[in-house]
Amino acid sequence: MKSYRKQLWFDIKKRRELINITPQVDQCLAESGVQEGLLLCNAMHITASVFINDDESGLHQDYEKWLEKLAPEKPHSQYKHNGMEDNADAHLKRTVMGREVVVAITQGRLDFGPWEQIFYGEFDGNRKKRVLVKIIGE
Amino acid sequence: MKSYRKQLWFDIKKRRELINITPQVDQCLAESGVQEGLLLCNAMHITASVFINDDESGLHQDYEKWLEKLAPEKPHSQYKHNGMEDNADAHLKRTVMGREVVVAITQGRLDFGPWEQIFYGEFDGNRKKRVLVKIIGE
Amino acid sequence: MKSYRKQLWFDIKKRRELINITPQVDQCLAESGVQEGLLLCNAMHITASVFINDDESGLHQDYEKWLEKLAPEKPHSQYKHNGMEDNADAHLKRTVMGREVVVAITQGRLDFGPWEQIFYGEFDGNRKKRVLVKIIGE
Repeated sequence: MKSYRKQLWFDIKKRRELINITPQVDQCLAESGVQEGLLLCNAMHITASVFINDDESGLHQDYEKWLEKLAPEKPHSQYKHNGMEDNADAHLKRTVMGREVVVAITQGRLDFGPWEQIFYGEFDGNRKKRVLVKIIGE
Repeated sequence: MKSYRKQLWFDIKKRRELINITPQVDQCLAESGVQEGLLLCNAMHITASVFINDDESGLHQDYEKWLEKLAPEKPHSQYKHNGMEDNADAHLKRTVMGREVVVAITQGRLDFGPWEQIFYGEFDGNRKKRVLVKIIGE
Repeated sequence: MKSYRKQLWFDIKKRRELINITPQVDQCLAESGVQEGLLLCNAMHITASVFINDDESGLHQDYEKWLEKLAPEKPHSQYKHNGMEDNADAHLKRTVMGREVVVAITQGRLDFGPWEQIFYGEFDGNRKKRVLVKIIGE
């Protein structure tokens, strides 16, 4: 069994942003040499997300509006977590969007449907944060 | 290490439906011959879901109502994604329900609790769509 | 390839609670002897969750309030599932929080970011329930 590990670093210069990281994950898979296996890609921070959806700017605006409806950032005082922090909403938004994705590897490729793309979802930016890529297989 | 891959095809004749696919996934596992390992089952489309919950019709009606409350389909014009499409709500509903499940394989069986069943969640039907089953192990 | 399996049992004496199970999962990993691989940790019941977030009591109070807003327990009669049961809300809350986590194993450790902790989320307690830990790797 082969295994591979890489951290991807991000330093998003605003509070919230969605970034297509499929090219970086593809690069990891190429480096691993794994032909058949599973790839785990997860946020290493609990106010960020890794998820799979569509790379369409209208949808990304819909996500922003929708997440603000489900788990509004302000007023910060509505959350108990925000005594010392102001990012409780980011923990909740990440919960909706998910921590991780697991992707099949088949014949050395990410085994994706026609529109699947992997995104890093930042919900509390303005600092360096990491995503983990772990691959096991043969 | 063994690996196995199969696509399951669906062509749901309405916009939304939940279908118990546990028998098809069990069949995949039997075909794979894997005794100990992990099974990934994911929607290959970004307006559909694979999730684990209860096969109880009342609950499925509750899901329909609840998802319509969290991410209503109409009016279509409320979503930026719906310039050329009408399925933004399906992307959001799938986000709530999840893309994938990972299931343990133990002694050649899906290692499930008493009521766990795997469902395909269609949120934008009336066309052919796929689910991927990938198994690795020994 | 090595594989390891263990069930963790819980008997929470109230309807809802979040419990940090990272020490038990660490113990499983130590017992497995796996150095490089993947660890699956999932609720075996469909009214409970396993998720990764912050071990901070204010945030846990925020989760309680937020989940009650998204999927209120009462009135029980608002849910079709509650003909014979009273736990439809628990199925929905678990859907938001997720069934499972998959964690990378690197050099014999859970490959975590600085604040990641694994929680069991009970949403319909007062009975014995289980979490599954399955590890594969080398």
